[in-house]
Parts: sequence; structure tokens; C-alpha cells
Amino acid sequence: MVKWGNVGNVVNVVNVGPPFNPLSFYPFYPFAPLSFYPSSWLYQISQYFGFLLFTFGVMKIIIAQQNYHIGNFEANTARILSAIADAKCVGADLVVFSELAVCGYPPRDFLEFTDFIEQAHAALAVISDAADTIGVLVGCPSVNPEAKGKNLYNSAYLLYDQKIQGIVHKTLLPTYDIFDEYRYFEPAAKWEVLEFKGKRLAVTICEDIWDLEDDPLYRMCPMDELIKQQPDIMINLSASPFDYMHAAGRKGVIRKNVMRYNLPMIYCNTVGSQTEIVFDGGSIAMNSNGSIIAELPYFAEAMQVVEWDDDGLSADSPTAVVQTEESVVIKTLMPEMNISQIHSALLMGIRDYFGKMGFDKAIVASSGGIDSAVVLALACEALGAGNVRALLLPSQFSTNHSVDDAVQLSVNLGNQYDIIAIKDVFEAYEQALHPVFKDLPFNVAEENLQSRIRGAMVMALANKFGYILLNTSNKSELATGYGTLYGDMAGGLGVLGDLYKLQVYALARYINRDSEVIPQNIIDKAPSAELRPGQKDSDSLPEYDTLDPILFQYIEHRQGPAEIVRKGYHAALVGRILKLVNNNEYKRNQFCPIIRVSPKAFGMGRRMPIVGKYLG
Amino acid sequence: MVKWGNVGNVVNVVNVGPPFNPLSFYPFYPFAPLSFYPSSWLYQISQYFGFLLFTFGVMKIIIAQQNYHIGNFEANTARILSAIADAKCVGADLVVFSELAVCGYPPRDFLEFTDFIEQAHAALAVISDAADTIGVLVGCPSVNPEAKGKNLYNSAYLLYDQKIQGIVHKTLLPTYDIFDEYRYFEPAAKWEVLEFKGKRLAVTICEDIWDLEDDPLYRMCPMDELIKQQPDIMINLSASPFDYMHAAGRKGVIRKNVMRYNLPMIYCNTVGSQTEIVFDGGSIAMNSNGSIIAELPYFAEAMQVVEWDDDGLSADSPTAVVQTEESVVIKTLMPEMNISQIHSALLMGIRDYFGKMGFDKAIVASSGGIDSAVVLALACEALGAGNVRALLLPSQFSTNHSVDDAVQLSVNLGNQYDIIAIKDVFEAYEQALHPVFKDLPFNVAEENLQSRIRGAMVMALANKFGYILLNTSNKSELATGYGTLYGDMAGGLGVLGDLYKLQVYALARYINRDSEVIPQNIIDKAPSAELRPGQKDSDSLPEYDTLDPILFQYIEHRQGPAEIVRKGYHAALVGRILKLVNNNEYKRNQFCPIIRVSPKAFGMGRRMPIVGKYLG
Repeated sequence: MVKWGNVGNVVNVVNVGPPFNPLSFYPFYPFAPLSFYPSSWLYQISQYFGFLLFTFGVMKIIIAQQNYHIGNFEANTARILSAIADAKCVGADLVVFSELAVCGYPPRDFLEFTDFIEQAHAALAVISDAADTIGVLVGCPSVNPEAKGKNLYNSAYLLYDQKIQGIVHKTLLPTYDIFDEYRYFEPAAKWEVLEFKGKRLAVTICEDIWDLEDDPLYRMCPMDELIKQQPDIMINLSASPFDYMHAAGRKGVIRKNVMRYNLPMIYCNTVGSQTEIVFDGGSIAMNSNGSIIAELPYFAEAMQVVEWDDDGLSADSPTAVVQTEESVVIKTLMPEMNISQIHSALLMGIRDYFGKMGFDKAIVASSGGIDSAVVLALACEALGAGNVRALLLPSQFSTNHSVDDAVQLSVNLGNQYDIIAIKDVFEAYEQALHPVFKDLPFNVAEENLQSRIRGAMVMALANKFGYILLNTSNKSELATGYGTLYGDMAGGLGVLGDLYKLQVYALARYINRDSEVIPQNIIDKAPSAELRPGQKDSDSLPEYDTLDPILFQYIEHRQGPAEIVRKGYHAALVGRILKLVNNNEYKRNQFCPIIRVSPKAFGMGRRMPIVGKYLG
Repeated sequence: MVKWGNVGNVVNVVNVGPPFNPLSFYPFYPFAPLSFYPSSWLYQISQYFGFLLFTFGVMKIIIAQQNYHIGNFEANTARILSAIADAKCVGADLVVFSELAVCGYPPRDFLEFTDFIEQAHAALAVISDAADTIGVLVGCPSVNPEAKGKNLYNSAYLLYDQKIQGIVHKTLLPTYDIFDEYRYFEPAAKWEVLEFKGKRLAVTICEDIWDLEDDPLYRMCPMDELIKQQPDIMINLSASPFDYMHAAGRKGVIRKNVMRYNLPMIYCNTVGSQTEIVFDGGSIAMNSNGSIIAELPYFAEAMQVVEWDDDGLSADSPTAVVQTEESVVIKTLMPEMNISQIHSALLMGIRDYFGKMGFDKAIVASSGGIDSAVVLALACEALGAGNVRALLLPSQFSTNHSVDDAVQLSVNLGNQYDIIAIKDVFEAYEQALHPVFKDLPFNVAEENLQSRIRGAMVMALANKFGYILLNTSNKSELATGYGTLYGDMAGGLGVLGDLYKLQVYALARYINRDSEVIPQNIIDKAPSAELRPGQKDSDSLPEYDTLDPILFQYIEHRQGPAEIVRKGYHAALVGRILKLVNNNEYKRNQFCPIIRVSPKAFGMGRRMPIVGKYLG
């Protein structure tokens, strides 16, 4: 679904689409078939008003904020061609796509395959053919022709008149957190503006505009080079991911650039989730005085027409979805956060994981606790309750209210659920193990065994009926190792693995903002794994009010024990918690991908030695 | 255990040690207590021959090839101090340690903690105090004092007279495969030789000397800068890992450097396993004519005295362990390999994982198949049969000979074993699942369930008795997804995950080189998971003779489908196999660390999108 903003001074249509409402039919869905695109409809309008669309002295630029599928050249090319067709229909001069749009971002080690690069260039040739009367700026890897350095560049191609008119390479290659760009790419070593229809475009790629700090991460700044060639505009192709501390910063960075170089900027970001990384869109057109001309939606595909003349950029109807939700204070020493953004990111994370993997249906082990309740509610919202199944797996230690709460939750959500008690299977294990265990007392071995029985049960349904198991572990548990490998740590996608327990509660309250979806009792009761009589999380862990801020200082802020103690915590407590975090690296190493919403998620963005001894 | 080579022209002792034989007592063991070191004994010798040790015009350099523990500053510092003490005893002028010796390599994201860097520098201060009458060259991260660039350098410190006499920074930062150095470090931007006792030392760090190719990976070459300052010798501090195609190349690189710059080189490598990465030692002293003066042992700690005068380097008794084992041809299109090296690497991988994690005891699910047999044999050799337990978990589909073979194996090895049939537990699951499964036919759900019962059983013993589960999956299975998550894919360490099935057979034959440790029947019979009646691997997969070379071309050589087909395979078969590899990324993502012996192991060195579509 393409959501159109301003389509010019003449034809001013917002949210143009086919006669039916595509938003309700195809919300965020990554792979709209070509026929859903409004090309033919727009084509008719452009035919009608055709003569008016030829304005002089004005350049019409389209920002195409799209959701790609990594390595799926067929789908990505179709998507790009469709946007080019639409852009032609409104008489655009130039259409701008995001970083590495042709292959999807991040392509990771696919880039090491010559075959993959050849496929990308075959796709680029097809796109180039479509760039006949319209300019196209699109991201694609290019081969470094020099003998020295890495084999590839992360490049932006200017296509026009069915030819490559120019290429620029990315200079600043983020190689931190989830980013590995210097693994693949040589940084640019020369900088040239691209000429297009008599204008000089300073084209940069993502990180290239991000290093205007007092303490820069890189030794040089590509825009400082480009500005010497007196460009008329800055255009940045990005793949800039969401996190709950990052979204606001992006506008600030763009503003810093337009003010510093006294130029307007077109900033085109990608959108959509790629395994664990959520790209939130929010592309922007900004004038050199810092005013926002257009702000594209967050967590949705969209296109936007911007007109550019001697007075700068203009757009009749910015499509920005104003996010009114107030930021919520979770706890001292933890950041305020916009829960509605996190909610949108998780929905997109689930939806794109399923959509791009070709899956429809999810299963959740529903315990009557807060984590599985939130995951189940998110899954039903993302995939439709008809595609979600809950499995309740009470043990001999489960309380009645847990089962009742879990049942009520599924009744509220309208998803299918089953109840299978695990007691008999547990006893069969006990009997089989008795010759070896003899009369050794019940301990963590039996607790883990029950969790693993649940894991095996829910995977049996997943395998039998084609469900994907959504994991329900939260970040507090994963940090401290309070979970069972192959038991409650099983699953294909970690929905809450980047939210601390206190943040999960805030999300539960947000889900209940209009009505009680999650039974209040689930939110109110004390958390428990129910693996032994009367067990509570607080038997093994500090209260989450204490635990979570300490974890946040250590994980997100990379503070050491002394720095955390200075914030007012007991040294012994801090030492104990940090030791838990470091000693459980081996468990997290076997965990599924986690939808990333924080600036430091477990997974590919946090790479710790397993066999190490620091603070352990 | 420190194995001494030549300790000078005067005191010529090979394999100096305490009166008892430390090799038999402490083979490769990473954390010898200080008292095991031969300091006091050597001290006595040096006192006796003391006057003779002062030679003039000769510089005595010690190469200290040691095994560090990442982040364990106490242990690493003790180890380094002990070597300094030993070096003083033999009147050495300079002792050379390996790359990032102070904190261990690779420290990964520990480097992002200011506290970690402060601890490293506190350790460096202690080492500096010991460097009073002796020079010490040691690797340690340093803080970049400039505002621009990354915060750290990967540095080598020259300590002498209890002061820092000089620092050099690494220039070429490997950022490929398992290496992430540009994630943390700024490359050096200036190059200066270090002056020591009137000599000019060209000190480089690992990768700095590796880029003398026609198609260099980097734009500059640090030795080309240093040579302008007319150094007298090259000294390289390395952390260069083993793989079965890399070991031979290392000597070639050193030779290329000494010939090109017409200088001798001291090359000090680290040794020991760090989770998945095995460092094999093999430090070298080479004269400018390319002759090897000393070659330190592989897969063992060692120290070596080298004398350096106007005629170049000399050493009386090179300690090299000559590896006589012939390379074995596995199969056309797969590399010849030295199985004895792989065997040593896996033993060190197991031993160091357990030693550094503080574990003693391993458990293996022993199926009567080749993979678990090889893992069990390796575990017994690495940890001692008394520390290894086998669990036989026959299903209703297991053949009698499988159990017999597995029993015979444990009898041969002398390890404890138990037999627990899984049939009753499986039936309890079937009964519990019946209300949901109804009468749906037996399929992959039930096959996986049996594998998961085995996983839960062996983990129950692991949890109850404190064993670490060694995983037995081979690379062919992991590549094609022929394994069950949370079942046979469970475990803390993947012993065979970097060896294709054909290579596992070669290793089994090597283990049986002197006597039949692994029953011949295990080697001879057709591989089967025994999860349904009469099942064979070849029902689901091509024969390993065909599969493995195709996997090798794709995974190790990064060849695309067309290139592999050109080597003589059917396009449909190649397409099917490559699709299996790419579609099973999600399984490997949840797999434990794999001891790396190939140039491209699954895990941190191979980073593929999970949600992707390339060849899938």
C-alpha cells in the first residue's frame, strides 16, 4: 500500500489510493502485489491534467519510503518499479529511494557472494530501464574497481535517461551495535556532487550526516567536502532503525545539517522490520531554515511529493502522523518512553517476521502471567486473532487463578486456546529418571524439566499444525538468566526480549488503554514461574523496581559497578546482578532473534565473550 | 605449564620444568597456579651462571606464547609476571607477549566498558612495575587521546625501567569473519619505530603484516612506513587463530615480510581456545633470509629464548614440534587436511571451555552413531574418562546394535554410562496431546518430540549432577537443518559443528589409528537419526559424498549456484541444497558456540539474515 501525500500544486490529493480503503486491507503489509498500487488511477489523473504538470523552474521530487525484503530482488524491484511508475504519473523529476533499497538492508554476509552482487546489478539494470524520463536515486552495493581496499562500496546510483549518471559511495561506515558496515564496504575516498537537470545534488548515505558531534566517531565529514562544490540541495538515503531513544534525535541531526550547510535536505528512510531490526520510516523534507516541509508516517510505507524551487522546498500537505501519545516515566534512572511507538514497532516486528518468512500462524504458551498475556495480545493485533493459538500448560504447581486468567485473556482476545496439563508427562520423566536420580531431592533439575516439557508441548503443536512459537521472555529475565534453555526460552521470535519487566507492565497498561484486554488480575499479581510450590520471581531476583534500573545502567549505559553504586545502590547487590548478567551470556547466545526497540538489545548488537571472566 | 626452549648459549636447557613432569600433570591446562612455574628453579641456575649471562652486543629476547582468559586480569597478570620473572632469570633483555595479552583476545564488547579499560590499565601498571631491568612488549587496549575517531586503539606497550617507553597502535583492523576490530578500535595514523637499548624495533600487531597481497584489503601498509625509519628488527604481537587452511599460510606471510624488508622477525602468537576460536600458537623467529630460527609448539604454551646480534637471530634448540602427520584427502573439491591438527584443536577447544568456565564434567547423548562416538572419545581424551558420562536414550525405533555399539564404545573408553528408554515418556506425551492431535498421522512433530525428550533427559542429568552437555551435531546437519531445535541441537559447546560428515569419518579413523577405540561397526553403518522405523539420513539428504563438497563450495568458498554447477553438479540438486542452507539460518541462530577449525564456521564468523530470501 502506498500512501500518497502532496502530489503537486496542481493535483493536490492526500492518501490517494484505489477506490477501496487499502489501509484497512493491507496495513503495513510488506508485499503488496503490484495491482494494489494506484498507478493506473494516478495515470488517468495525470493524463487529464497533463499539460499543467509541466511546471518550469520547479523540480518535483518524490520520497519513496518503502519496506524491502533482504535478498528478494524480484519483490524489491517490483516495489521500486511501481513507485517509479507512480512518480511518472504525477510528472515527478526525481524519485528518491532508501539505502541499499535494491537488496534490502542489512544484507549482511550475503554481500560476500559474487552471485548476490550480480543479482543486485541485474535488478539495477531493470530499474535503470524504467528511469527514462525520470531521475531515480537508489541505494545498491557497487564493486570497488581499485585493487586496494574492501571489494564493495555502499552506494547510491543516480539513474536517468536509462543510464547510470553518477554514483556516490558512503563514507562513514557504522561499525558498532547492530551495524557491521566496515565488514563489507570500503569508505569513499573522494566526494563529488551529482549534476541533475542543472542542479547540484549533495548525495550522502545515512551515517554520512550523523557525525556532527564535538566528539566525532570518524576522522572526516563527507558533507564538509561536498559543500566546497557548492551544491544546491542535500539528499540522504537512509536505513536508520528505530529505538525508543533514537526517533527524536533524527530530526535534530537533520536540522543540524541544514543549518550548518544552509541547504535544504531530502531525507529518505526505509521502513519495515528485518528480523530483529525495526526501521520506522519518518522520512523528512526540511528547508535550510530548519522548518519541516514534510514528515512521512512512522511504521508505514508512504510516498511524498516535494516541490523544490529557488525558495526552497514546499509540500502542500505533509503526511506526518502526529504522535500525540505522551512519554511515560517508567522509573527513576530509566528513560521516558513513548509506549505507542514501542507498540507500533513490536506489531511491525511480528507482522514483517511472519510476512517475509511466509508464515501465517503463531502459537503462544500462555501462563496467566503478564509476559505471555502481552505477547498474545500483540500477536492477535498483528496477525489477527484467527491466526493465533494459545496453549495453557498448567503444572501441579500452577494456581487455579493462572489458568482462569489465561482463559479469560483468550476469551477477551477471541483466539483459540487449549489446556494440556503437564503433570502426567512430568511423572513419566520422573519414573524414567529414577534409576539415575534415585531419591535426590527436587531441585532446579525438576524445575527446568517442567519448563522443557512445556517447550516440547508447544513445539509439538507448532510442528504439527505449522505455527511459529512466539517467545515471551522479557529483558530482565534474559539479563539475569532467569529462564530455562529449551523450555520457556524456546521460540522463533522474541517479542518482549528488549523490554524490561517494568516496561512490559507499561505496555500492558497501554494495551488496556481503552478496555480491559488483559485481565487486571494478570497485571496486579506478583510474577511467578510456578515451577515449585508458592514460587515467586522475588525469591530469586531483587524486586523489578530495583533490578531494572540497575540493568539499564549496565546494559544500555555500559556503566561499571562503581558508577552504578554511585547512583545509590548497594555494592553487593550491584555486584550480584552484574555477575548474573555476565554469567548467563551462554543462555542468551542460544536465544532467538529479539525485536529491537532499545538502543542496546541482546543479540547481534551486543557481542560478549561467553568464556570470559569480567565481573563474573 | 611453561615449556622452555633454548635458554641461551650458556644455559642450554630444553623443556626445563620442575622436577616432576609437568606435561603429564598439566597438559595445555590454561591456569597453572604460579607455584607450578619453574621460576625458582631457573632463578637458581641464573644465580649460578649469572656472570656468564651478561653477554655484550647480543640482545636476548624471550617469546612468551601464553594462554589467557578474557577479562580475567588477575590470572592474566599473574601469567605475564611469571614469564617476566622467568625471563629475568635467564638474563633476557626483552620479553615479548602477544596481542591484547593483558585482557585476552578477543575481548569483544567488554571493550565498551570504561571500567574494563581501567582494569586493563591497572594490570598494565603492575606489569610495568615488574619491567624494571627487563624490557616488556605487551598488548593492551589504549585510549585514543584525540577527539576524533573511535575511543580505543589496539596497542603494544614497550615497558622498561618501570615506565612506558613507547606505544604503537595497530593499523590494519581485521573486520571480517570472526573479527570485529573496527567496531572498537581506531586505526593508527602515524608510525614510529621504538628505541630499545640502542636498537630500533619495528613493532606491528597481527594483521599489520598480513596485507602484502596483489589485491590488498587495506589502502596502506604500516611496515612500508616503518621501514623508512631504518628499523633493525620486526616484532609482531599476534592473536592469530587456527583453521585447517590457515596454519601453513602463516609461515609464508612471515617469510614474505622478512624477504621484502630484509629484516629478521620475532612473531609472538597467543595460544588457547576462547569459546569458539582456537589460537594455535606456533610463534616463530625468522631471519631475514627466511630461515626459521625457532618455531614454538602448536596447541601448547611455551617460551623461547632467541639471541640477536649483528648476524641476525639465533637459537640453540628450536622447540618446534614437527607435525609428521600427512594431510588427508577427504574428497574431490574439499581441501586436504591435517587431521592431527584438527584433533589437537578440538581437544584444546573442549579443555579450555571447561577450564575457563570452571567446569569439570561433561555429558554426551550417545546414540551409537558416528558423531556422538567421536565427541565422546574426544571428551574422554580432553577431560579424562572419569569426568565424562554417556547417556543412551533408545527410542522404540532404535535398533539393538545401536545400543550395543554405544555400550561397547563406553566400555572401550572407560566412561560411566546409563541407559534410559524414552518410550514411556513419549507415550505420556502422545496421551496428553491426543485431545489436540486426535488421530493425525505420525509425522515430523513426533520425530522432533522424541529428539526433544532426549534433549530434556540429558539436560535433566546435566542440571542434577552439574554436567555440561556436549553437542554432537556435525556441519553437514547444521548446514541443511537436519536436526531438532531443543533436541539433538541442545548443548553448551558444539564439538563437531565445524566438520562435515566426511571429515567426522576421517577424524574417527584418526582416533582409531592405534587401536579400535570407536567400534568399527559405528564407522561402517549407514547414518540414521532412528526417529522412525528404518530411517536413514539418505532418505532426507543426498549422500554425504555429494552433499559435503557442494556445502564446502557454498559455505567456505562463497560460490553461487552457477559456479557450483560448473564444477559438475546438477542444477536442481545444487539449488535444493543451497535453499536448505539458507532456509535453516533460524535454527543455527539458536545453536551453541562451535569450536572453529575451518576458515568459515557457523556462528559469529558467518552472519546471515534470518528473514531473507536469497536462494531460499
